[in-house]
Amino acid sequence: MRATVMYGPGDVRFEDVADPKIAKPTDAIIELAATCICGSDLWPYRGLQPQDGPQNMGHEYCGVVVEVGSEVRTIKKGQFVVGSFCISDNTCPHCRFGFQSSCAQREFMTGAQAPYARVPLADGTLVATDEMPDADMVPHLHAVSDVLGTGWYAAYAAQVLEGGTAVVVGDGAVGLMGILAASQMGAARIIAMSRHADRQNLAREFGATDIVEERGDDGIARIVELTNGVGAESVLECVGMEQSMSQAMGVCRPGGTIGYVGVPHGVSFDGQQLFFKQQRMLGGPAPVRRFLPDLMNRVLSRKIAPGKVFDLVLPIEQVAEGYKAMDERRAIKTMLRVDE
Amino acid sequence: MRATVMYGPGDVRFEDVADPKIAKPTDAIIELAATCICGSDLWPYRGLQPQDGPQNMGHEYCGVVVEVGSEVRTIKKGQFVVGSFCISDNTCPHCRFGFQSSCAQREFMTGAQAPYARVPLADGTLVATDEMPDADMVPHLHAVSDVLGTGWYAAYAAQVLEGGTAVVVGDGAVGLMGILAASQMGAARIIAMSRHADRQNLAREFGATDIVEERGDDGIARIVELTNGVGAESVLECVGMEQSMSQAMGVCRPGGTIGYVGVPHGVSFDGQQLFFKQQRMLGGPAPVRRFLPDLMNRVLSRKIAPGKVFDLVLPIEQVAEGYKAMDERRAIKTMLRVDE
Repeated sequence: MRATVMYGPGDVRFEDVADPKIAKPTDAIIELAATCICGSDLWPYRGLQPQDGPQNMGHEYCGVVVEVGSEVRTIKKGQFVVGSFCISDNTCPHCRFGFQSSCAQREFMTGAQAPYARVPLADGTLVATDEMPDADMVPHLHAVSDVLGTGWYAAYAAQVLEGGTAVVVGDGAVGLMGILAASQMGAARIIAMSRHADRQNLAREFGATDIVEERGDDGIARIVELTNGVGAESVLECVGMEQSMSQAMGVCRPGGTIGYVGVPHGVSFDGQQLFFKQQRMLGGPAPVRRFLPDLMNRVLSRKIAPGKVFDLVLPIEQVAEGYKAMDERRAIKTMLRVDE
Repeated sequence: MRATVMYGPGDVRFEDVADPKIAKPTDAIIELAATCICGSDLWPYRGLQPQDGPQNMGHEYCGVVVEVGSEVRTIKKGQFVVGSFCISDNTCPHCRFGFQSSCAQREFMTGAQAPYARVPLADGTLVATDEMPDADMVPHLHAVSDVLGTGWYAAYAAQVLEGGTAVVVGDGAVGLMGILAASQMGAARIIAMSRHADRQNLAREFGATDIVEERGDDGIARIVELTNGVGAESVLECVGMEQSMSQAMGVCRPGGTIGYVGVPHGVSFDGQQLFFKQQRMLGGPAPVRRFLPDLMNRVLSRKIAPGKVFDLVLPIEQVAEGYKAMDERRAIKTMLRVDE
C-alpha cells in the first residue's frame, strides 16, 4: 500500500510501504474509514523534535476490522472500531485506575495515515460500535480518537465544574475540543483565548461564552478583569509552550486547577513559584480509552459534532499539502479521505 | 516584654521588645497559652533563607484575647482562640473558595514566640472555643495552628481516599501530622518514610501501617514493591527539598496526586517529565483557617492528640536551646511554655 512517511522537517511523502500484518496474536488490522493530521505531528515537521530516520506517521484512526490475531477475543472482523493513540491492555492496574495512557504495556500508535493499520492489543485498545455508522458520522467518530479525547481530558484534568468558569488557552483543534468538553460538563462560563476569526466562530459554536484576543500580560489582565479579579477555577492549557503555560498560570485562581495536554516544549517550573500560586496541576497524554464509550455515545446520539473541527478535507494522496496547510495555519485540522 | 528575635543564622535571642499594640481597628492582642518553633524557622536559622536584619519570630499560636480593636465584631476579650500562620479576612473570594492562605488581604503572622502577640484581621483569622479549654488540651489545640493544619492540607491536597494508600515523605513534625491526617481520612495503608526510631514510633502511633527506612532509589524501589509495582495514589511531600520531591514523584502512581507542603528550596520541574509522569500536584501554604473548626473539634472531643508531636517543652526564655535542639535533630518540635 501507499502511506505517509516523514523523512525530516517539512518532508512528508506518500509512498509505497509494506502492508501491515498481524505481528502479535493480540493485534488487529483495520481498514481506515478516515485519518488525519495531529497538531503534535507538526513538532517534527517544524524540526522542533528530533527524529531518527524516516517515520510512519499517523496515530488517529477509526475504521473496519479486517483481520484479528489468534488471541483477540472481543474485537471481531467486520466491526467498526475507534481506538486511542495510546495502545493499552485495559486490564493492568493503571488502566483500571482510568489512566490507560500510562498502561503497563503502553505503546504509541503509529502508521495510521494510511489505508490500513495494525493496532496492537486490539481487545484493550479498540471500542466497537453496535452497528455500522452512517458515513456522515465518520468525521465525528474519528475526532474522538485523539483530538476530542484529549480536549475532554484537559477539561477533566482541569476539574471543570457544572456552573463553573473555565479558560481555554490555545485555539487549535485540541483547544476547540476543550471548549466543547467544558460545555458538555456544564461550565457556565467558558473563556476562549483566540485571535483568529474562523476559530472564534467555531469556539462560540462549541460553547465559548467569551473570547479574549489579547495575549501575554494583556490577555491575563483581561481575563482577571472578566472574572472580577479572581481568576478561573479551571484552566485548560492546550498548547505546550512556555508562553501558553504562563497564560494558564496567570489566569488560574488559587485552589483552581490547570489541565495541560499540549506536550510541553521548553517549559519548566520553579518549585517555589508553583507552591505559592497554589494551583492544582494535572497533565499527560490523555487516557482517551477511558472516555471512548461515553464520547462515541455522545456522537452517535448526535449530542455533539466534534468533526466540525476538520476544516480541510483532502484525499490521503495529498497528505503533504495537509501538513503544509496546518503548518501555515491555513487549516485548523486536516482530515484525510481514504478511499483509493 | 521579652520575645524571640533572630539576628542571623544560629543567632536567636530572647530580649526586650516593644509590647504589641492594636495597630489597626481589626486587630486583636492575645496572651499566648503556648507557642513553638516551626520547621520553617530553621531555614533562616541555617542560613538557607536570606533575612534583612533582626526578625521577630513565631507564627504558631493560641491563647486568650486580651484586647480587640474597635472594628472587631465576633472575637471577644476573654475568649480562648486559635489562629493560622496565614492572616486572612475569611470573606474574600479566595477565602470563600477555601484557600484562605491566598486571601486578598493575606499577611503572614510574626512575633508569636512571645508572651503576647498582635493578630491582624482578628474576626477572619481567629476561631474561638466555646469554653476555656483544660490545660492539658493546650498543646493539642496549639498544634492545630500550623503543624497539624499543614499536615492536614497535605493529605487533602494529595486527595487521600478512604481505603486508599498514602505515602508520607518526611518524618518531621509536619510529616507526622500528615500521617495522623491520612489516618483520620480513612487511608487503609499509610507508608511512612523514616529512619529515626523515635519518629517511627510516633508515626505508628499516628497511624502509619508501614515504615520504609531506605531513601533515594532504594526507598522508591521498596515502596514500589510494597504497592505491587503500582505506586501510591496519594503522596504527601512534607520536606521541600529536591531529594524529597524526587522521592514523592518516584512513588506516586500515574493519575495519583502529590500534596506538597514543604516550601520548596532548590526544587524545579521539567514540564515534559511532569507531563509524562501524569501526577496531579497541589502545594502551597496550608489554608489552615478552613480546617480550624473541624480540627479543634477533633481535639476537644479527644479524637486526636496532635500535641504529642512536641517532644521537647522548654520555658520560652530557653528558646535559643529549642532552636538548637531542632537544628541538631535532638527534638522533632519544641513547644515553648509561656508562664512568666
